[in-house]
Amino acid sequence: MTPASVPLPQAYRLLNHGPVVLVSAAHQGKRNVMAAAWNMPLDFDPPKVTVVIDKNTYTRELVDASGQFALNLPCRAQAETVLAVGSDSGRDAAQDKFARFQLDTFAAAAIEVPLLQGCVAWLECKVIPEPHTQQRYDLFIGEAVAAWADARVFADGRWNFDGNDDLRTLHYIAGGAFFATGAPI
Amino acid sequence: MTPASVPLPQAYRLLNHGPVVLVSAAHQGKRNVMAAAWNMPLDFDPPKVTVVIDKNTYTRELVDASGQFALNLPCRAQAETVLAVGSDSGRDAAQDKFARFQLDTFAAAAIEVPLLQGCVAWLECKVIPEPHTQQRYDLFIGEAVAAWADARVFADGRWNFDGNDDLRTLHYIAGGAFFATGAPI
Repeated sequence: MTPASVPLPQAYRLLNHGPVVLVSAAHQGKRNVMAAAWNMPLDFDPPKVTVVIDKNTYTRELVDASGQFALNLPCRAQAETVLAVGSDSGRDAAQDKFARFQLDTFAAAAIEVPLLQGCVAWLECKVIPEPHTQQRYDLFIGEAVAAWADARVFADGRWNFDGNDDLRTLHYIAGGAFFATGAPI
Repeated sequence: MTPASVPLPQAYRLLNHGPVVLVSAAHQGKRNVMAAAWNMPLDFDPPKVTVVIDKNTYTRELVDASGQFALNLPCRAQAETVLAVGSDSGRDAAQDKFARFQLDTFAAAAIEVPLLQGCVAWLECKVIPEPHTQQRYDLFIGEAVAAWADARVFADGRWNFDGNDDLRTLHYIAGGAFFATGAPI
């Protein structure tokens, strides 16, 4: 599957329905990935997003250092991976999480951050520096500078999961449980 | 249905899976309600939330004036209502949106804001003043000071929609379309 480019004015639609994301980041040869249920679109065009990245995470160190992050949208087939990368720190391990959990990556187009294979959408983001909200609330604002999706489930600005249950996005509840994105209305 | 009190440390779980909310607000006898897909939890305990409330909305005026808002979580049976209150301004109409769309309300416990009957959860919030983020990004941060849920679908800190399809929460896509919250994983 080759990710299809999503026009930037449509990028907010990737997050609008509230899915959990995996935040990936890198700096000077180090890289990491964490799960983040607390994310949302913040503006349409240019597209902005917010995401909470806790001070205690290794991902936070990398984002603070690089000013970049990517939001990767995992799908139902990756639920175990989301739990694994969400419950484990990448700071002190001998191998980074990508290696440990055998996560294949591909290069982003506009930032220096690995994107996760097998996800169904990706937003490449540059941090809009807001030191007060970053420090006080762990809240990061980013501008999405490139966006991609798996055309089997997102095309012409719309999600359509019919016939692709394994590719449904995930909504995190708590305690290791998710909802899959459900029926269209 | 009498809303059941949700312990504040569990309040984030009402929003964690990314549902659309209706933001209600009031000030000096005026009241309004709008739809907001762009919301998320921001902290666990005390629970904080963020929500985007556009400068052009009448709800924004009321929130700016009162420092309070409520997040009401509509359910599948209310999808039409969400679209109606989301596409219509309450500013200049002869009747407020509650009256026009025949929306019954009940009183909040800790703030002076009407809560919508028929929703499945409610968070009563006080604005944590952050003038810069409010002005620049239309981004509001609130502390949830009381929370409620319909015990048929949220009890002991968990959502469970089995057997209550009409009470499933909604995830907004765009262009009048939603996903219902789907299967648990």
